[in-house]
Amino acid sequence: MTTQQLIEQIKIKKSFLAVGLDVDLDKIPPHLLELEDPIFEFNKAIIDATHDLCVAYKPNIAFFEAYGIKGWMALQKTINYINDTYPDIFTIADAKRGDIGNTSSMYAKAFFEDLNFDSVTVAPYMGKDSVEPFLAFENKHTIMLALTSNEGAFDFQTLLVDGKELYKQVLETSKTWKNSENLMYVVGATKAEYFTEIRKIIPDSFILVPGVGAQGGSLSEVCKYGMNDNIGLLINSSRGIIYASKGTDYAEKARAEALKMQQEMAEIVRLKF
Amino acid sequence: MTTQQLIEQIKIKKSFLAVGLDVDLDKIPPHLLELEDPIFEFNKAIIDATHDLCVAYKPNIAFFEAYGIKGWMALQKTINYINDTYPDIFTIADAKRGDIGNTSSMYAKAFFEDLNFDSVTVAPYMGKDSVEPFLAFENKHTIMLALTSNEGAFDFQTLLVDGKELYKQVLETSKTWKNSENLMYVVGATKAEYFTEIRKIIPDSFILVPGVGAQGGSLSEVCKYGMNDNIGLLINSSRGIIYASKGTDYAEKARAEALKMQQEMAEIVRLKF
Repeated sequence: MTTQQLIEQIKIKKSFLAVGLDVDLDKIPPHLLELEDPIFEFNKAIIDATHDLCVAYKPNIAFFEAYGIKGWMALQKTINYINDTYPDIFTIADAKRGDIGNTSSMYAKAFFEDLNFDSVTVAPYMGKDSVEPFLAFENKHTIMLALTSNEGAFDFQTLLVDGKELYKQVLETSKTWKNSENLMYVVGATKAEYFTEIRKIIPDSFILVPGVGAQGGSLSEVCKYGMNDNIGLLINSSRGIIYASKGTDYAEKARAEALKMQQEMAEIVRLKF
Repeated sequence: MTTQQLIEQIKIKKSFLAVGLDVDLDKIPPHLLELEDPIFEFNKAIIDATHDLCVAYKPNIAFFEAYGIKGWMALQKTINYINDTYPDIFTIADAKRGDIGNTSSMYAKAFFEDLNFDSVTVAPYMGKDSVEPFLAFENKHTIMLALTSNEGAFDFQTLLVDGKELYKQVLETSKTWKNSENLMYVVGATKAEYFTEIRKIIPDSFILVPGVGAQGGSLSEVCKYGMNDNIGLLINSSRGIIYASKGTDYAEKARAEALKMQQEMAEIVRLKF
Protein backbone atom coordinates (compact mmCIF):
# COMPACT_ATOMS: atom_id res chain seq x y z
CA MET A 1 0.00 0.00 0.00
CA THR A 2 1.31 3.47 -0.83
CA THR A 3 1.23 6.40 1.59
CA GLN A 4 -1.27 8.10 -0.69
CA GLN A 5 -3.60 5.08 -0.50
CA LEU A 6 -3.34 5.16 3.29
CA ILE A 7 -4.29 8.85 3.32
CA GLU A 8 -7.28 8.07 1.07
CA GLN A 9 -8.45 5.42 3.51
CA ILE A 10 -8.20 7.89 6.38
CA LYS A 11 -10.43 10.29 4.43
CA ILE A 12 -12.95 7.61 3.46
CA LYS A 13 -13.21 6.02 6.91
CA LYS A 14 -12.78 9.27 8.82
CA SER A 15 -10.44 7.35 11.04
CA PHE A 16 -6.74 7.06 11.70
CA LEU A 17 -7.12 4.26 14.20
CA ALA A 18 -4.82 1.24 14.30
CA VAL A 19 -6.05 -1.71 16.33
CA GLY A 20 -3.28 -3.60 18.07
CA LEU A 21 -3.59 -7.37 18.15
CA ASP A 22 -1.76 -8.38 21.33
CA VAL A 23 -3.48 -11.67 21.94
CA ASP A 24 -2.78 -13.19 25.33
CA LEU A 25 -4.49 -16.53 25.97
CA ASP A 26 -4.86 -15.56 29.63
CA LYS A 27 -6.94 -12.53 28.67
CA ILE A 28 -9.24 -13.68 25.88
CA PRO A 29 -12.75 -14.98 26.58
CA PRO A 30 -12.34 -18.47 28.07
CA HIS A 31 -14.90 -20.07 25.75
CA LEU A 32 -12.48 -19.53 22.83
CA LEU A 33 -9.85 -21.76 24.42
CA GLU A 34 -11.78 -24.85 23.35
CA LEU A 35 -11.35 -23.97 19.67
CA GLU A 36 -8.51 -25.33 17.56
CA ASP A 37 -6.91 -21.91 16.99
CA PRO A 38 -8.20 -19.52 19.67
CA ILE A 39 -5.74 -16.76 18.73
CA PHE A 40 -6.89 -16.62 15.12
CA GLU A 41 -10.59 -16.97 16.01
CA PHE A 42 -10.26 -14.10 18.47
CA ASN A 43 -8.46 -11.93 15.90
CA LYS A 44 -10.94 -12.75 13.15
CA ALA A 45 -13.92 -11.73 15.30
CA ILE A 46 -12.19 -8.50 16.37
CA ILE A 47 -11.28 -7.71 12.76
CA ASP A 48 -14.77 -8.44 11.43
CA ALA A 49 -16.23 -6.20 14.14
CA THR A 50 -13.89 -3.22 13.65
CA HIS A 51 -12.58 -3.18 10.06
CA ASP A 52 -14.77 -0.24 8.98
CA LEU A 53 -13.68 1.86 11.95
CA CYS A 54 -9.91 1.57 11.64
CA VAL A 55 -7.35 1.93 8.86
CA ALA A 56 -4.72 -0.42 10.26
CA TYR A 57 -4.14 -3.59 12.28
CA LYS A 58 -0.97 -4.03 14.25
CA PRO A 59 -0.26 -7.61 15.30
CA ASN A 60 2.31 -7.54 18.08
CA ILE A 61 4.71 -10.30 17.02
CA ALA A 62 5.86 -11.14 20.56
CA PHE A 63 2.39 -12.34 21.45
CA PHE A 64 2.48 -14.84 18.59
CA GLU A 65 6.07 -16.00 19.11
CA ALA A 66 5.31 -16.72 22.75
CA TYR A 67 3.08 -19.59 21.55
CA GLY A 68 5.71 -21.11 19.27
CA ILE A 69 4.64 -22.78 16.05
CA LYS A 70 0.95 -22.48 16.91
CA GLY A 71 1.46 -18.77 17.43
CA TRP A 72 3.29 -18.37 14.15
CA MET A 73 0.51 -20.24 12.35
CA ALA A 74 -2.07 -17.94 13.97
CA LEU A 75 -0.04 -14.93 12.81
CA GLN A 76 0.05 -16.22 9.25
CA LYS A 77 -3.69 -16.91 9.25
CA THR A 78 -4.40 -13.48 10.74
CA ILE A 79 -2.38 -11.52 8.18
CA ASN A 80 -3.75 -13.64 5.32
CA TYR A 81 -7.29 -13.06 6.54
CA ILE A 82 -6.78 -9.28 6.64
CA ASN A 83 -5.06 -9.17 3.24
CA ASP A 84 -7.69 -11.38 1.58
CA THR A 85 -10.82 -9.99 3.21
CA TYR A 86 -10.01 -6.32 3.78
CA PRO A 87 -7.27 -5.44 1.29
CA ASP A 88 -7.58 -1.69 1.95
CA ILE A 89 -6.34 -2.13 5.51
CA PHE A 90 -2.74 -1.10 6.26
CA THR A 91 -0.92 -3.84 8.16
CA ILE A 92 1.84 -3.32 10.71
CA ALA A 93 4.11 -6.08 11.99
CA ASP A 94 5.07 -4.73 15.38
CA ALA A 95 8.33 -6.59 15.62
CA LYS A 96 10.96 -3.96 16.55
CA ARG A 97 13.65 -5.79 14.61
CA GLY A 98 17.11 -4.58 13.63
CA ASP A 99 20.41 -6.37 13.01
CA ILE A 100 23.45 -6.22 10.72
CA GLY A 101 22.63 -5.86 7.03
CA ASN A 102 22.44 -9.49 5.90
CA THR A 103 20.33 -10.38 8.95
CA SER A 104 17.98 -7.41 8.61
CA SER A 105 17.47 -8.56 5.01
CA MET A 106 16.13 -11.85 6.35
CA TYR A 107 13.76 -10.07 8.75
CA ALA A 108 12.56 -7.87 5.88
CA LYS A 109 11.97 -11.00 3.82
CA ALA A 110 10.04 -12.59 6.72
CA PHE A 111 7.64 -9.68 7.20
CA PHE A 112 7.39 -8.16 3.72
CA GLU A 113 7.60 -11.27 1.54
CA ASP A 114 6.66 -14.35 3.51
CA LEU A 115 3.91 -12.71 5.59
CA ASN A 116 3.18 -9.79 3.21
CA PHE A 117 2.80 -7.02 5.79
CA ASP A 118 2.70 -3.42 4.57
CA SER A 119 5.06 -2.27 7.29
CA VAL A 120 7.31 -3.39 10.12
CA THR A 121 8.61 -1.59 13.21
CA VAL A 122 12.40 -1.45 13.61
CA ALA A 123 14.86 -0.34 16.29
CA PRO A 124 17.49 2.31 15.40
CA TYR A 125 20.36 1.36 17.72
CA MET A 126 22.41 -0.48 15.07
CA GLY A 127 22.21 2.38 12.57
CA LYS A 128 21.88 2.82 8.84
CA ASP A 129 22.87 -0.58 7.47
CA SER A 130 20.50 -2.29 9.91
CA VAL A 131 17.51 -0.34 8.55
CA GLU A 132 18.24 0.03 4.84
CA PRO A 133 17.38 -3.59 3.95
CA PHE A 134 13.81 -2.83 5.08
CA LEU A 135 13.73 0.49 3.20
CA ALA A 136 14.74 -1.25 -0.02
CA PHE A 137 11.26 -2.77 -0.45
CA GLU A 138 9.00 -0.87 -2.87
CA ASN A 139 5.64 0.26 -1.42
CA LYS A 140 6.50 -1.17 1.97
CA HIS A 141 7.03 0.99 5.04
CA THR A 142 9.61 0.91 7.78
CA ILE A 143 8.47 2.34 11.09
CA MET A 144 11.42 3.30 13.24
CA LEU A 145 11.38 3.77 17.00
CA ALA A 146 12.01 7.39 17.89
CA LEU A 147 10.48 8.23 21.29
CA THR A 148 8.62 5.31 22.80
CA SER A 149 5.65 5.30 25.16
CA ASN A 150 7.28 3.52 28.10
CA GLU A 151 9.11 4.82 31.15
CA GLY A 152 12.41 3.40 29.85
CA ALA A 153 12.28 5.95 27.00
CA PHE A 154 14.00 8.31 29.42
CA ASP A 155 16.96 5.97 29.96
CA PHE A 156 18.61 6.66 26.60
CA GLN A 157 16.25 8.26 24.07
CA THR A 158 16.13 11.64 25.78
CA LEU A 159 19.83 11.87 26.68
CA LEU A 160 21.51 14.90 25.18
CA VAL A 161 23.83 14.21 22.26
CA ASP A 162 25.68 17.39 21.34
CA GLY A 163 22.96 19.38 23.07
CA LYS A 164 20.18 17.53 21.27
CA GLU A 165 18.14 14.56 22.50
CA LEU A 166 19.10 11.18 21.05
CA TYR A 167 15.63 10.61 19.55
CA LYS A 168 15.95 13.88 17.60
CA GLN A 169 19.34 12.74 16.36
CA VAL A 170 17.69 9.48 15.24
CA LEU A 171 15.04 11.44 13.34
CA GLU A 172 17.52 13.77 11.67
CA THR A 173 20.07 11.13 10.75
CA SER A 174 17.52 8.67 9.38
CA LYS A 175 16.07 11.35 7.08
CA THR A 176 19.31 11.19 5.11
CA TRP A 177 19.11 7.45 4.48
CA LYS A 178 18.30 5.91 1.11
CA ASN A 179 14.54 5.66 0.43
CA SER A 180 13.78 7.57 3.62
CA GLU A 181 10.43 8.51 2.05
CA ASN A 182 9.39 4.98 3.10
CA LEU A 183 10.16 5.77 6.74
CA MET A 184 7.55 6.31 9.41
CA TYR A 185 8.29 6.73 13.11
CA VAL A 186 7.02 5.56 16.49
CA VAL A 187 6.31 8.27 19.06
CA GLY A 188 4.38 7.38 22.22
CA ALA A 189 1.11 9.11 23.07
CA THR A 190 2.36 9.47 26.64
CA LYS A 191 4.84 12.05 25.32
CA ALA A 192 2.32 14.36 23.56
CA GLU A 193 4.16 17.57 24.43
CA TYR A 194 7.19 16.38 22.46
CA PHE A 195 5.30 16.26 19.16
CA THR A 196 5.75 19.96 18.35
CA GLU A 197 9.53 19.63 18.24
CA ILE A 198 9.31 16.31 16.42
CA ARG A 199 7.11 17.79 13.68
CA LYS A 200 9.77 20.43 13.02
CA ILE A 201 12.17 17.63 12.07
CA ILE A 202 9.76 15.31 10.24
CA PRO A 203 6.83 17.47 9.07
CA ASP A 204 5.60 15.03 6.43
CA SER A 205 6.18 11.58 7.88
CA PHE A 206 3.50 9.37 9.31
CA ILE A 207 3.86 8.70 13.02
CA LEU A 208 2.59 5.53 14.66
CA VAL A 209 1.39 6.47 18.13
CA PRO A 210 1.02 3.72 20.74
CA GLY A 211 0.07 4.41 24.33
CA VAL A 212 -3.47 5.76 24.04
CA GLY A 213 -5.75 3.88 26.43
CA ALA A 214 -4.14 1.34 28.79
CA GLN A 215 -0.87 3.31 28.89
CA GLY A 216 -2.62 6.62 29.60
CA GLY A 217 -1.96 8.81 26.53
CA SER A 218 -4.56 11.32 25.29
CA LEU A 219 -5.88 11.30 21.71
CA SER A 220 -6.75 15.00 21.67
CA GLU A 221 -3.36 16.04 23.02
CA VAL A 222 -1.52 13.94 20.45
CA CYS A 223 -3.63 15.40 17.62
CA LYS A 224 -3.15 18.94 18.87
CA TYR A 225 0.64 18.71 18.68
CA GLY A 226 1.25 15.90 16.23
CA MET A 227 -1.04 16.24 13.21
CA ASN A 228 0.11 17.45 9.83
CA ASP A 229 -1.80 18.38 6.67
CA ASN A 230 -2.53 14.73 5.88
CA ILE A 231 -3.33 13.88 9.50
CA GLY A 232 0.00 12.04 9.52
CA LEU A 233 -0.86 9.94 12.55
CA LEU A 234 -1.83 6.34 13.15
CA ILE A 235 -3.15 6.11 16.68
CA ASN A 236 -2.90 2.64 18.09
CA SER A 237 -5.06 1.12 20.76
CA SER A 238 -4.64 -2.52 21.73
CA ARG A 239 -5.83 -3.61 25.16
CA GLY A 240 -8.45 -0.82 25.46
CA ILE A 241 -10.27 -2.25 22.43
CA ILE A 242 -9.60 -5.97 22.22
CA TYR A 243 -10.08 -6.67 25.93
CA ALA A 244 -13.18 -4.52 26.42
CA SER A 245 -15.04 -7.66 27.51
CA LYS A 246 -14.08 -11.16 28.53
CA GLY A 247 -17.57 -12.48 27.72
CA THR A 248 -19.10 -13.84 24.54
CA ASP A 249 -19.86 -10.21 23.60
CA TYR A 250 -16.14 -9.35 23.29
CA ALA A 251 -16.28 -8.48 19.59
CA GLU A 252 -19.35 -6.28 20.06
CA LYS A 253 -17.72 -4.48 23.01
CA ALA A 254 -14.49 -4.10 21.05
CA ARG A 255 -16.52 -2.45 18.28
CA ALA A 256 -18.10 -0.08 20.79
CA GLU A 257 -14.66 0.99 22.04
CA ALA A 258 -13.30 1.37 18.51
CA LEU A 259 -16.39 3.37 17.55
CA LYS A 260 -15.79 5.81 20.41
CA MET A 261 -12.29 6.48 19.11
CA GLN A 262 -13.41 6.64 15.48
CA GLN A 263 -16.11 9.19 16.32
CA GLU A 264 -13.60 11.40 18.07
CA MET A 265 -11.31 11.03 15.05
CA ALA A 266 -14.12 11.74 12.57
CA GLU A 267 -14.54 15.23 14.04
CA ILE A 268 -10.85 15.87 13.54
CA VAL A 269 -10.77 14.47 10.00
CA ARG A 270 -13.81 16.59 8.99
CA LEU A 271 -12.04 19.75 10.13
CA LYS A 272 -8.94 18.78 8.20
CA PHE A 273 -10.21 17.84 4.75
CA MET B 1 23.04 -22.89 32.61
CA THR B 2 24.85 -20.76 35.19
CA THR B 3 27.80 -18.51 34.38
CA GLN B 4 29.98 -20.79 36.50
CA GLN B 5 28.98 -23.81 34.42
CA LEU B 6 29.82 -21.90 31.25
CA ILE B 7 33.26 -21.08 32.62
CA GLU B 8 33.77 -24.77 33.50
CA GLN B 9 32.94 -25.73 29.92
CA ILE B 10 35.46 -23.21 28.61
CA LYS B 11 38.12 -24.82 30.80
CA ILE B 12 37.18 -28.36 29.83
CA LYS B 13 36.92 -27.75 26.09
CA LYS B 14 39.70 -25.16 25.98
CA SER B 15 37.44 -23.15 23.78
CA PHE B 16 35.27 -20.04 24.00
CA LEU B 17 33.90 -20.43 20.51
CA ALA B 18 30.24 -19.86 19.67
CA VAL B 19 29.11 -21.18 16.30
CA GLY B 20 26.48 -19.02 14.63
CA LEU B 21 23.70 -20.86 12.83
CA ASP B 22 22.65 -18.42 10.07
CA VAL B 23 21.17 -20.92 7.67
CA ASP B 24 20.41 -19.48 4.25
CA LEU B 25 18.89 -21.99 1.81
CA ASP B 26 20.76 -20.23 -1.01
CA LYS B 27 24.08 -21.00 0.64
CA ILE B 28 23.80 -24.56 1.99
CA PRO B 29 24.92 -27.56 -0.05
CA PRO B 30 22.30 -28.05 -2.79
CA HIS B 31 21.92 -31.79 -2.13
CA LEU B 32 20.26 -30.94 1.21
CA LEU B 33 17.41 -29.11 -0.49
CA GLU B 34 15.79 -32.42 -1.40
CA LEU B 35 15.32 -33.34 2.26
CA GLU B 36 12.14 -32.60 4.17
CA ASP B 37 13.80 -30.15 6.56
CA PRO B 38 17.05 -28.96 5.00
CA ILE B 39 17.61 -26.26 7.65
CA PHE B 40 17.50 -28.71 10.54
CA GLU B 41 19.51 -31.38 8.70
CA PHE B 42 22.20 -28.81 7.94
CA ASN B 43 22.28 -27.61 11.57
CA LYS B 44 22.34 -31.15 12.94
CA ALA B 45 25.34 -32.09 10.81
CA ILE B 46 27.18 -28.89 11.74
CA ILE B 47 26.42 -29.42 15.43
CA ASP B 48 27.49 -33.08 15.41
CA ALA B 49 30.73 -32.10 13.70
CA THR B 50 31.66 -29.20 15.99
CA HIS B 51 30.08 -29.74 19.44
CA ASP B 52 33.36 -30.71 21.13
CA LEU B 53 35.14 -27.63 19.77
CA CYS B 54 32.71 -24.92 20.84
CA VAL B 55 30.89 -23.97 24.03
CA ALA B 56 27.88 -22.27 22.43
CA TYR B 57 25.57 -22.26 19.43
CA LYS B 58 23.90 -19.08 18.31
CA PRO B 59 20.93 -19.58 15.99
CA ASN B 60 20.22 -16.27 14.26
CA ILE B 61 16.45 -16.02 14.55
CA ALA B 62 15.98 -13.90 11.40
CA PHE B 63 17.21 -16.77 9.25
CA PHE B 64 14.50 -19.02 10.63
CA GLU B 65 11.67 -16.46 10.55
CA ALA B 66 12.42 -15.74 6.90
CA TYR B 67 11.13 -19.26 6.14
CA GLY B 68 7.89 -18.84 8.06
CA ILE B 69 6.37 -21.82 9.83
CA LYS B 70 8.90 -24.24 8.32
CA GLY B 71 11.66 -22.00 9.64
CA TRP B 72 10.15 -21.83 13.10
CA MET B 73 9.81 -25.63 13.14
CA ALA B 74 13.46 -25.98 12.13
CA LEU B 75 14.40 -23.61 14.95
CA GLN B 76 12.48 -25.65 17.47
CA LYS B 77 14.02 -28.90 16.25
CA THR B 78 17.50 -27.36 16.32
CA ILE B 79 17.29 -26.05 19.89
CA ASN B 80 15.69 -29.31 21.08
CA TYR B 81 18.44 -31.30 19.40
CA ILE B 82 21.15 -29.25 21.12
CA ASN B 83 19.44 -29.37 24.54
CA ASP B 84 18.77 -33.11 24.32
CA THR B 85 22.02 -34.27 22.77
CA TYR B 86 24.59 -31.82 24.09
CA PRO B 87 23.16 -30.38 27.31
CA ASP B 88 26.47 -28.76 28.32
CA ILE B 89 26.28 -26.37 25.37
CA PHE B 90 25.26 -22.77 26.07
CA THR B 91 22.55 -21.65 23.65
CA ILE B 92 22.02 -18.13 22.38
CA ALA B 93 18.87 -16.94 20.61
CA ASP B 94 20.24 -14.11 18.52
CA ALA B 95 16.98 -12.20 18.28
CA LYS B 96 17.80 -8.60 19.28
CA ARG B 97 14.38 -8.10 20.82
CA GLY B 98 13.14 -5.29 23.05
CA ASP B 99 9.71 -3.71 23.60
CA ILE B 100 7.58 -2.27 26.39
CA GLY B 101 7.40 -4.41 29.54
CA ASN B 102 4.38 -6.60 28.84
CA THR B 103 5.61 -7.28 25.29
CA SER B 104 9.18 -8.05 26.33
CA SER B 105 7.70 -10.52 28.81
CA MET B 106 6.17 -12.37 25.86
CA TYR B 107 9.49 -12.44 23.99
CA ALA B 108 11.20 -13.71 27.15
CA LYS B 109 8.55 -16.44 27.39
CA ALA B 110 9.09 -17.35 23.73
CA PHE B 111 12.85 -17.79 24.00
CA PHE B 112 13.36 -18.88 27.61
CA GLU B 113 10.25 -21.02 28.18
CA ASP B 114 8.81 -22.17 24.87
CA LEU B 115 12.16 -22.73 23.14
CA ASN B 116 14.30 -23.13 26.28
CA PHE B 117 17.34 -21.12 25.19
CA ASP B 118 19.95 -20.20 27.84
CA SER B 119 20.18 -16.64 26.57
CA VAL B 120 18.75 -14.09 24.18
CA THR B 121 20.19 -10.93 22.64
CA VAL B 122 18.27 -7.69 23.29
CA ALA B 123 18.43 -4.10 22.07
CA PRO B 124 18.81 -1.30 24.65
CA TYR B 125 17.01 1.61 22.94
CA MET B 126 13.75 1.27 24.92
CA GLY B 127 15.51 1.23 28.28
CA LYS B 128 15.15 -0.51 31.62
CA ASP B 129 11.57 -1.77 31.55
CA SER B 130 12.14 -3.30 28.10
CA VAL B 131 15.03 -5.44 29.39
CA GLU B 132 14.01 -6.34 32.95
CA PRO B 133 11.42 -8.95 31.90
CA PHE B 134 14.30 -10.94 30.38
CA LEU B 135 16.50 -10.43 33.45
CA ALA B 136 13.77 -11.80 35.70
CA PHE B 137 14.43 -15.38 34.55
CA GLU B 138 16.59 -17.43 36.93
CA ASN B 139 19.72 -18.97 35.36
CA LYS B 140 18.94 -17.40 32.00
CA HIS B 141 21.11 -14.71 30.44
CA THR B 142 20.27 -11.48 28.67
CA ILE B 143 22.86 -10.31 26.17
CA MET B 144 22.48 -6.62 25.47
CA LEU B 145 23.80 -4.80 22.42
CA ALA B 146 26.52 -2.37 23.41
CA LEU B 147 28.87 -1.72 20.47
CA THR B 148 27.97 -3.75 17.40
CA SER B 149 30.23 -5.06 14.65
CA ASN B 150 28.61 -3.23 11.73
CA GLU B 151 29.37 0.12 10.12
CA GLY B 152 26.07 1.55 11.43
CA ALA B 153 27.45 1.25 14.97
CA PHE B 154 28.94 4.70 14.36
CA ASP B 155 25.55 6.29 13.59
CA PHE B 156 24.33 6.40 17.19
CA GLN B 157 26.32 4.08 19.50
CA THR B 158 29.48 6.19 19.49
CA LEU B 159 27.80 9.60 19.72
CA LEU B 160 28.88 11.56 22.78
CA VAL B 161 26.33 11.80 25.57
CA ASP B 162 27.62 14.21 28.23
CA GLY B 163 31.12 13.66 26.92
CA LYS B 164 30.78 9.87 26.97
CA GLU B 165 29.87 7.56 24.09
CA LEU B 166 26.30 6.23 24.11
CA TYR B 167 27.44 2.58 24.28
CA LYS B 168 29.35 3.37 27.49
CA GLN B 169 26.24 5.02 28.89
CA VAL B 170 24.34 1.83 28.01
CA LEU B 171 26.92 -0.28 29.87
CA GLU B 172 26.93 1.94 32.94
CA THR B 173 23.19 2.43 33.21
CA SER B 174 22.34 -1.24 32.67
CA LYS B 175 24.72 -2.27 35.47
CA THR B 176 22.28 -0.63 37.90
CA TRP B 177 19.28 -2.68 36.74
CA LYS B 178 17.72 -5.44 38.78
CA ASN B 179 19.42 -8.82 38.32
CA SER B 180 22.14 -7.20 36.23
CA GLU B 181 24.40 -10.12 37.18
CA ASN B 182 22.46 -11.99 34.46
CA LEU B 183 23.54 -9.43 31.84
CA MET B 184 26.08 -10.12 29.15
CA TYR B 185 26.92 -7.70 26.32
CA VAL B 186 27.54 -7.70 22.58
CA VAL B 187 30.71 -5.98 21.38
CA GLY B 188 31.85 -6.46 17.80
CA ALA B 189 35.26 -7.96 17.02
CA THR B 190 35.71 -5.22 14.41
CA LYS B 191 36.04 -2.75 17.29
CA ALA B 192 38.85 -4.55 19.21
CA GLU B 193 40.58 -1.35 20.34
CA TYR B 194 37.43 -0.33 22.26
CA PHE B 195 37.60 -3.34 24.58
CA THR B 196 40.08 -1.77 27.02
CA GLU B 197 37.67 1.02 27.91
CA ILE B 198 34.73 -1.38 27.96
CA ARG B 199 36.46 -3.70 30.43
CA LYS B 200 36.89 -0.76 32.82
CA ILE B 201 33.09 -0.49 33.00
CA ILE B 202 32.16 -4.17 32.95
CA PRO B 203 35.22 -6.07 34.20
CA ASP B 204 33.35 -9.26 35.10
CA SER B 205 30.64 -9.63 32.46
CA PHE B 206 30.74 -12.07 29.59
CA ILE B 207 30.94 -10.40 26.18
CA LEU B 208 29.55 -12.03 23.04
CA VAL B 209 31.81 -11.05 20.19
CA PRO B 210 30.49 -11.34 16.63
CA GLY B 211 32.43 -10.21 13.61
CA VAL B 212 35.43 -12.55 13.58
CA GLY B 213 35.78 -14.11 10.14
CA ALA B 214 33.47 -12.85 7.37
CA GLN B 215 33.22 -9.41 8.96
CA GLY B 216 36.99 -9.05 9.38
CA GLY B 217 37.57 -9.00 13.16
CA SER B 218 40.72 -10.52 14.70
CA LEU B 219 40.58 -13.13 17.46
CA SER B 220 43.99 -12.28 18.91
CA GLU B 221 43.24 -8.55 19.03
CA VAL B 222 39.93 -9.14 20.79
CA CYS B 223 41.55 -11.44 23.35
CA LYS B 224 44.40 -8.99 23.93
CA TYR B 225 42.04 -6.18 24.94
CA GLY B 226 38.86 -7.98 25.98
CA MET B 227 39.70 -10.99 28.17
CA ASN B 228 39.18 -11.07 31.90
CA ASP B 229 40.22 -13.59 34.56
CA ASN B 230 37.55 -16.07 33.46
CA ILE B 231 38.22 -15.45 29.74
CA GLY B 232 34.87 -13.60 29.74
CA LEU B 233 34.45 -13.81 25.99
CA LEU B 234 32.32 -15.86 23.64
CA ILE B 235 33.75 -15.42 20.17
CA ASN B 236 31.20 -16.09 17.49
CA SER B 237 31.87 -17.24 13.97
CA SER B 238 28.99 -18.03 11.63
CA ARG B 239 29.64 -17.91 7.91
CA GLY B 240 33.38 -18.67 8.24
CA ILE B 241 32.54 -22.05 9.76
CA ILE B 242 29.17 -23.18 8.46
CA TYR B 243 29.80 -22.24 4.83
CA ALA B 244 33.36 -23.55 4.61
CA SER B 245 32.21 -25.87 1.82
CA LYS B 246 29.16 -26.13 -0.37
CA GLY B 247 29.86 -29.80 -1.11
CA THR B 248 28.89 -33.02 0.64
CA ASP B 249 31.95 -32.47 2.88
CA TYR B 250 30.44 -29.32 4.43
CA ALA B 251 30.30 -30.68 7.99
CA GLU B 252 33.88 -31.96 7.80
CA LYS B 253 35.10 -28.61 6.45
CA ALA B 254 33.11 -26.76 9.12
CA ARG B 255 34.89 -28.89 11.72
CA ALA B 256 38.25 -28.03 10.21
CA GLU B 257 37.48 -24.30 10.45
CA ALA B 258 36.14 -24.63 14.00
CA LEU B 259 39.23 -26.64 14.96
CA LYS B 260 41.53 -23.87 13.71
CA MET B 261 39.76 -21.42 15.99
CA GLN B 262 39.63 -23.83 18.93
CA GLN B 263 43.37 -24.50 18.64
CA GLU B 264 44.12 -20.80 18.73
CA MET B 265 41.81 -20.48 21.75
CA ALA B 266 43.35 -23.51 23.51
CA GLU B 267 46.70 -21.71 23.67
CA ILE B 268 44.99 -18.75 25.30
CA VAL B 269 42.99 -20.85 27.77
CA ARG B 270 46.09 -22.79 28.81
CA LEU B 271 47.89 -19.55 29.66
CA LYS B 272 44.91 -18.35 31.68
CA PHE B 273 44.05 -21.28 33.94
